[in-house]
Amino acid sequence: MKTVWVDEVYQGIVRTSFKLKRRLFKGRSPFQTVEVVETAGHGKLLLIDGMTMVSERDEFVYHEMIAHPALFLHPNPRRVLVIGGGDGGTVREVLKHRSVERCILVEIDALVVDASRKFIPQTADALSDKRSRVLIADGVKFVAETDLKFDVVIVDSTEPFGPAKELFGTAFYSDVKRILTEDGVVASQAGSPFYEISTIKNLFSITKKIFPVVEVCLFNNLTYPGGLWAFTFATKGLHPLKDFKPARVKASKLKLRWYNAEIHAGCFALPNFLKAAIGR
Amino acid sequence: MKTVWVDEVYQGIVRTSFKLKRRLFKGRSPFQTVEVVETAGHGKLLLIDGMTMVSERDEFVYHEMIAHPALFLHPNPRRVLVIGGGDGGTVREVLKHRSVERCILVEIDALVVDASRKFIPQTADALSDKRSRVLIADGVKFVAETDLKFDVVIVDSTEPFGPAKELFGTAFYSDVKRILTEDGVVASQAGSPFYEISTIKNLFSITKKIFPVVEVCLFNNLTYPGGLWAFTFATKGLHPLKDFKPARVKASKLKLRWYNAEIHAGCFALPNFLKAAIGR
Repeated sequence: MKTVWVDEVYQGIVRTSFKLKRRLFKGRSPFQTVEVVETAGHGKLLLIDGMTMVSERDEFVYHEMIAHPALFLHPNPRRVLVIGGGDGGTVREVLKHRSVERCILVEIDALVVDASRKFIPQTADALSDKRSRVLIADGVKFVAETDLKFDVVIVDSTEPFGPAKELFGTAFYSDVKRILTEDGVVASQAGSPFYEISTIKNLFSITKKIFPVVEVCLFNNLTYPGGLWAFTFATKGLHPLKDFKPARVKASKLKLRWYNAEIHAGCFALPNFLKAAIGR
Repeated sequence: MKTVWVDEVYQGIVRTSFKLKRRLFKGRSPFQTVEVVETAGHGKLLLIDGMTMVSERDEFVYHEMIAHPALFLHPNPRRVLVIGGGDGGTVREVLKHRSVERCILVEIDALVVDASRKFIPQTADALSDKRSRVLIADGVKFVAETDLKFDVVIVDSTEPFGPAKELFGTAFYSDVKRILTEDGVVASQAGSPFYEISTIKNLFSITKKIFPVVEVCLFNNLTYPGGLWAFTFATKGLHPLKDFKPARVKASKLKLRWYNAEIHAGCFALPNFLKAAIGR
């Protein structure tokens, strides 16, 4: 039988393919195309406009790394806002922290949430937890208008074009700052150091204008082109390394497959070419 | 014009492809097939039996990370042995250290060296340095028979089958220990944490029987499946973190694009699932 591949061509120069088992869902929302496929070696994949967002095999790395460095840095995270991330994986990791009383997910596209709930319970089950709230709304508008305050904000966005474009802007981050409590931390998806260093540079310089502390961390991913990806962590004052208490990680007894205190300390180490790009 | 891709299928489940510009060379040695292609976005690639070994775009990461943690750990590396690595990239990084008086490369396959010299001077030029010696020989036999001693040994091998199989064995590492000086360090290519964790486990347990100190470090790669790969560092006593002197890196003024003292400290942090696999 001929192998059928689920292909993602990136920048016209590199293609990543996963062996297809079967196609489970394809739908079109006002924002984008949403697909779920089952693969031979990577479990189910969630694709948006043909780009892999989630693979069951390795989503734990992305979701642990966007959530736990921020939640272990904040001394007592109680209210958390996730923007984007309609698959639910980030909410799942946030809710592992017993201090969290409420996690609000603001996802612009109901189809992402619906498809994830139906086909990827591994991530989406967390959206049914009694501490979760799911709002189908524009995250940019939400942060501009809400009176709520949050200890941690996680910007779990797609790439900086299409519906996510405004999530890479100054106005958005000014609003995020306003709704953050004093020890607030905001973690954001920031692109690929190898292929999209300009995205990291832009996001770093925008957040640096608004927050006193901004650091970049790196993490690994099996399904994103190049395999290495970045998050920014911006805070109102807490430093991701100097104010991090490693002992809290062990004491928490969270069951994690990737993140630990040494990974936290190590993930903020940046290669020379990236330091140079962001002026470090 | 139809895009032509250079494909590598891995474990039958994932395929990585680079856009082809032109094919430069294909030859067959007694050991393997050796190819050089030029790509649209990743410079020239060296392929062995269809697997990408080197891409001009990102080979600096692999070569800096297999060489510098070992060479900055050893207090005064003067004699270095590289086994495999006929492309010359590892030798290039070794020779950046002014303390190094002699770097011997033992490569089993003359065709790898010849093709690299002809098509990939970016890595192979180092093989013409007056401090380099290139021996076309079996590395396993070389370490079993030589009377020379080395401060650092780098096992820059292909995967643990075919001509490289013995490089993942107990007899080989016993001989490596014999030819290492007192502060000796051996760095070895160890496979993929995501896809080939058994390779890392085996290499870790073999080297741990022979060396008092063994640590695993992780590094990133654009062209190896999964993007995350591992090296083991085994020593006669020096600890890669406790005995590392960060100030030496800055003082050296080496021009490096990836490695720095923070990267050194961070790259030995292992995710929980890998720690569990090697019994840490």
